[in-house]
Amino acid sequence: MNGAESLLTTLVNNGIEVCFTNPGTSEMHFVAALDEVEGMRCVLCLFEGVLSGAAGGYAAMARRPASTLLHLGPGLGNALANVHNAKKGHVPMVNIVGDHATYHLQYDAPLTADIEGIAGPVSHWVHTSKAPADIARDAAEAVRQAGIGQVATLMLPADVSWGDNPNGPEAAVTIAPPAAVPAERVNEALELLKSGGNCMIMIGGREVDSQRGLMLSRIGNAAGVRVCTETFPGRVARGAGSAVIDRLPYLAEMAIDHIKEVEHLILVGAPAPVSFFAYPNVPSAIAPPGCQQFVLAGPNDDIDQALEDLLESLNAVDVEPQVQPLAIPDLASGPLDVSKAATAVAHYLPENAIVVDESITSSFALYPATATAQPHDWLNLTGGSIGWGLPASVGAAIACPDRKVVCVEGDGSAMYTIQSLWTMAREHLDITVVIFNNQKYSVLEMEFARTGARGGKPGPNAASVLDIGSPGIDFVALATGMGVQASRATTAQEFNEQFAAAINGKGPRLIDAIVPPIF
Amino acid sequence: MNGAESLLTTLVNNGIEVCFTNPGTSEMHFVAALDEVEGMRCVLCLFEGVLSGAAGGYAAMARRPASTLLHLGPGLGNALANVHNAKKGHVPMVNIVGDHATYHLQYDAPLTADIEGIAGPVSHWVHTSKAPADIARDAAEAVRQAGIGQVATLMLPADVSWGDNPNGPEAAVTIAPPAAVPAERVNEALELLKSGGNCMIMIGGREVDSQRGLMLSRIGNAAGVRVCTETFPGRVARGAGSAVIDRLPYLAEMAIDHIKEVEHLILVGAPAPVSFFAYPNVPSAIAPPGCQQFVLAGPNDDIDQALEDLLESLNAVDVEPQVQPLAIPDLASGPLDVSKAATAVAHYLPENAIVVDESITSSFALYPATATAQPHDWLNLTGGSIGWGLPASVGAAIACPDRKVVCVEGDGSAMYTIQSLWTMAREHLDITVVIFNNQKYSVLEMEFARTGARGGKPGPNAASVLDIGSPGIDFVALATGMGVQASRATTAQEFNEQFAAAINGKGPRLIDAIVPPIF
Repeated sequence: MNGAESLLTTLVNNGIEVCFTNPGTSEMHFVAALDEVEGMRCVLCLFEGVLSGAAGGYAAMARRPASTLLHLGPGLGNALANVHNAKKGHVPMVNIVGDHATYHLQYDAPLTADIEGIAGPVSHWVHTSKAPADIARDAAEAVRQAGIGQVATLMLPADVSWGDNPNGPEAAVTIAPPAAVPAERVNEALELLKSGGNCMIMIGGREVDSQRGLMLSRIGNAAGVRVCTETFPGRVARGAGSAVIDRLPYLAEMAIDHIKEVEHLILVGAPAPVSFFAYPNVPSAIAPPGCQQFVLAGPNDDIDQALEDLLESLNAVDVEPQVQPLAIPDLASGPLDVSKAATAVAHYLPENAIVVDESITSSFALYPATATAQPHDWLNLTGGSIGWGLPASVGAAIACPDRKVVCVEGDGSAMYTIQSLWTMAREHLDITVVIFNNQKYSVLEMEFARTGARGGKPGPNAASVLDIGSPGIDFVALATGMGVQASRATTAQEFNEQFAAAINGKGPRLIDAIVPPIF
Repeated sequence: MNGAESLLTTLVNNGIEVCFTNPGTSEMHFVAALDEVEGMRCVLCLFEGVLSGAAGGYAAMARRPASTLLHLGPGLGNALANVHNAKKGHVPMVNIVGDHATYHLQYDAPLTADIEGIAGPVSHWVHTSKAPADIARDAAEAVRQAGIGQVATLMLPADVSWGDNPNGPEAAVTIAPPAAVPAERVNEALELLKSGGNCMIMIGGREVDSQRGLMLSRIGNAAGVRVCTETFPGRVARGAGSAVIDRLPYLAEMAIDHIKEVEHLILVGAPAPVSFFAYPNVPSAIAPPGCQQFVLAGPNDDIDQALEDLLESLNAVDVEPQVQPLAIPDLASGPLDVSKAATAVAHYLPENAIVVDESITSSFALYPATATAQPHDWLNLTGGSIGWGLPASVGAAIACPDRKVVCVEGDGSAMYTIQSLWTMAREHLDITVVIFNNQKYSVLEMEFARTGARGGKPGPNAASVLDIGSPGIDFVALATGMGVQASRATTAQEFNEQFAAAINGKGPRLIDAIVPPIF
């Protein structure tokens, strides 16, 4: 068995059943191994940014990593932004990066690059296999590293791939369980909750599932303290039956106001809150000066046990959570805007849907509008690098073929990885994409004002750089050109009809929603 | 004057008049400065891979760097592949990468990353400005570094951008001239040429312009030795009136055969030839064992003077070069294939056109077919990372608004940076794009066989990964969706008519050429 076959077998033995790829010459033996080893679904993407985003969306929904197969340093570079997003969101990922044969590197061929150097800033673990005999063991280690919520990047030189591996594949490895939160830390949290000071609990990290959210709500009710999620946890259970939990506002000024009276901020899986960007005269830290920020659990700790322990220690196992009712809004009419589209999304969202949100400014309307819709999961952009939404939808749909994926996208961010649409068509994925086409980098108009640059008013040159309406982008044409059925909506009624049809149908569909900017 | 304004003024003072950009919040003060400082044309691209490729194409044609403006680590990551291509081609580039404010980094906001770490592998020079007072001086240093054929990457923290720079901008810096080639090295080359052994001269690097090519041909004629270019020099003057110079074949087996009898290989701006990839049982080095590889001049040395000195020392100033005649082929008819399309390109190619070649396997027909066409420049992919052709065309057209740009593109590589079409429309660039749509990663089918994986025959899973025809990509729809006029050609006559119309017209136009794979 050659190195590639032993690698692939090791991945499959470890439950890694999907490989998102765009390979090149140096990966051909891995590609060949797909016909020798059973159990790996290989999903071709036309650009590496698509495949790394798909791997992230897959892992968020499957709760286990996918693998990627990348072509040398530039292939990894193309994937980098969505690997960054995965790393920031504690999303597990196993990246296999092909490299030149070990003996070929000295010749500095055109595609030679310092791949480890490129991988380092976006990976928790980086390793280059040195010989065919090592590759399966190295792959097992990559799986072990990824299993604890990390990005593992393994370089696979071509001769390691094609050489014979006398050791054969590795069996399933043991993944370290989440670290237990010690009783003393739970007690400390309890003391804070009982201290009489203004307390708040913020939860976040990879996932706030239904159980976790309800538990937090009960703790909040029992202790009489406010609870919230960080701004962008990776995945949140929402809609009817989920806990009523605010999210920390995106805008630093609003976030600061939201927690301005908090004296003790208990963090559960979430980092200490911080402004997304720096602005002149706005503090970077969101918590007020003097606020104690106490980490009950880190993102890879056993959060559920910690919450359970805390609830028990509050003697509050009978306290009920605050739960969202099912409240479906009526449909709107008239010219389309983001609020009306959000109403339709909330109206038609099917039970158990997955909403992938990269709608940027449009999310200001979409997020609250869907709070009492049918139960659903909501995926957020965790690392701030746009071009994640369409790819993450690909991955989510592959992880959960029986659930409807609704991708809400900004026009500007959609264009980063627009090639995703082709993979949606190729794999017949059940995804409804809504593009909020306002012909602007609308968030940057807002951010320009917030930075105070030029008194907050862009001159003609700056305004031109924020404007993507000349020429306007026809997303119906783009989708159709990649095999995805698409339509344009300019009125609420058109949107309602098209969205209902997309939800009731099966397979990829795109709606080009022509809307005015939300601001 | 704030840091951003002093930076922008310094760039303009140094003849950097174009900035390819896709900015974010941390770059808003730079964007604002575009309305305060005159002389910088800002070209918006919808994805960073487009803008770095455009900066490369611009520099290749303008013979001076453009600047890029990138948003944090992920923005640089998105740009990375085409920065790699520039680095490998000795193409000058000044990258400005916005970063968080210096005091904000400690908070590890979602978009925080080790930007220097990402920049290092693809840059010759990397620096982070520490304070507003430094930024203009740092920018001047970046220009100086880029000026000698390098990639310079300068990080611009947001507070360095918005803070006051008491030192103001820097004036034009002095760029070091190309290093003179010492007389002894010319003499050594002369000895080799006169040694009676089998000699060959290979030229390459950033550019083989008309003068340089003719000079080399005269030397070859005078010394009675063969001359060739490396496989992919950055820019080559071709067509009628240019020197007759072969290029080293891409395929290692053919390249090895091409120079199998050479005892002394004199390198002028070109590296020692090496196989693009490693293959089992194929040598990495192209030159035969025992062949002496002698570097007359490196890529940044004074190549013209070295060639002149060599010609003089051969007492051969009266020797004529071997020159390509003007020989325009007749048009073909019948079902379209790559050869027939190549004939039409050669037939209609206007004088002084710029051909940007990322046609991959189709280039096997296009390159020879255009050898005796009207005089033109030919741009090659220097770093092997695909997704370069469409962006490089954008840059070439901006550098040379009075010249027709013809971009010959593979379907697979086009999809990497398809967003380029939008910038072509937005800037009304005079580019004719021909997509050779064979619905395959055709080069990988060839490479699969060459690597010998699975006996050279892909199984069904592997074959599926090399196939991009399901669904077929409709490039007419994609182009139209981004504001570029487009048409489809399935017969030679359709192609001839559409190509003629594109050449005779002005502005961006795309032809979706449906062709069978060349193999």
